[in-house]
Amino acid sequence: MLIDKSITDFLAELKSDSPAPGGGSAAALAGAIGAALGIMVGNLTVGSKKYEVVHEQCKRLSLDFEERLTALEKYIDEDTKAFNQVMKAYKLSKNTEEEKQMRTKVIQESLKAASALPFTVAETCLDVLELAGKILSIGNINAASDAAVAGRMAEAAMWSAIYNVRINLGSIKDDDFVAEMASRVETMVARSEVLMDQLVKTANEKI
Amino acid sequence: MLIDKSITDFLAELKSDSPAPGGGSAAALAGAIGAALGIMVGNLTVGSKKYEVVHEQCKRLSLDFEERLTALEKYIDEDTKAFNQVMKAYKLSKNTEEEKQMRTKVIQESLKAASALPFTVAETCLDVLELAGKILSIGNINAASDAAVAGRMAEAAMWSAIYNVRINLGSIKDDDFVAEMASRVETMVARSEVLMDQLVKTANEKI
Repeated sequence: MLIDKSITDFLAELKSDSPAPGGGSAAALAGAIGAALGIMVGNLTVGSKKYEVVHEQCKRLSLDFEERLTALEKYIDEDTKAFNQVMKAYKLSKNTEEEKQMRTKVIQESLKAASALPFTVAETCLDVLELAGKILSIGNINAASDAAVAGRMAEAAMWSAIYNVRINLGSIKDDDFVAEMASRVETMVARSEVLMDQLVKTANEKI
Repeated sequence: MLIDKSITDFLAELKSDSPAPGGGSAAALAGAIGAALGIMVGNLTVGSKKYEVVHEQCKRLSLDFEERLTALEKYIDEDTKAFNQVMKAYKLSKNTEEEKQMRTKVIQESLKAASALPFTVAETCLDVLELAGKILSIGNINAASDAAVAGRMAEAAMWSAIYNVRINLGSIKDDDFVAEMASRVETMVARSEVLMDQLVKTANEKI
């Protein structure tokens, strides 16, 4: 599994001439880094008596971050698997009319799965962005830069996942599916802009 | 070394209650992910006859990405080391006047090093952002999302490193050093905004 590889080996696989792992797994990893940093800020806050009044709030935020971290770690490998399914589908034989039809069906299904997964990654990263803003506001000021980094990672990860949704939507022939996904992406982007403006403002005040 | 750890173990260290590794190492890693993706896009372009006219350009871009990847991989560990030096300096004894003065001097030197390093990380990530824009423009369109992810990662990594510069500048008493660094950061941010606007525009056209 990708997450069992060393960082050096993961980067070597990423840069290789194989298209997977690619931007989708990178997105999930960046989101996971953001979530992990959020947990660290929670720990550094709960570890300081000075912040006793927000200890309970921070513990809850840490649990919320943990949930996203667990999911995103899983998505690192799942995204690459979903991409490989698309590659496999394109390689199906198309000698007979029946084979052609089956191949098209399998390709379309694999493309839907390969855009639904990064959509879930993007949604999870949006959660991490929101949580990062919260921990930046109430957490240990000595770790304000770490909370801000968590937010930046989450935003970049969300966008990275969105690019992976969009590139697959381009080949999907189910117009309703495409329209629905595109609309949900727009809603997500609008929400992220509000959250990011707030995070950057708070970061500039604290750092 | 951090880069020899598995991704799972790195994330576990990141989220722990120890302040290092933290946002600085995360920044370098995100920049490295961006550079690695840039190389992949180069490989996928050079591997396709359709893009023969840009093969030489892409090979040069890949070399430029490689240089940044090598540096950023190194910075992942160096940032944590620089941070640990600051922690160590604060723990120096301060029983006599002489010890106090020496401690202050060592703290200030360690803080300068711990802001100079993320500054270099940020500069390197700005390079990756610029290179990502170039490879997005000329590279294999099937990997356009990967090139766009490279750019997003680079921008977030640059900002993450800048937060780490700024948080250390806040404790540095050498006003000239602080002013010089703050001014260089502003220049960097202005340049990144131009590059990012262009990258997002191109991404929206291609993806």
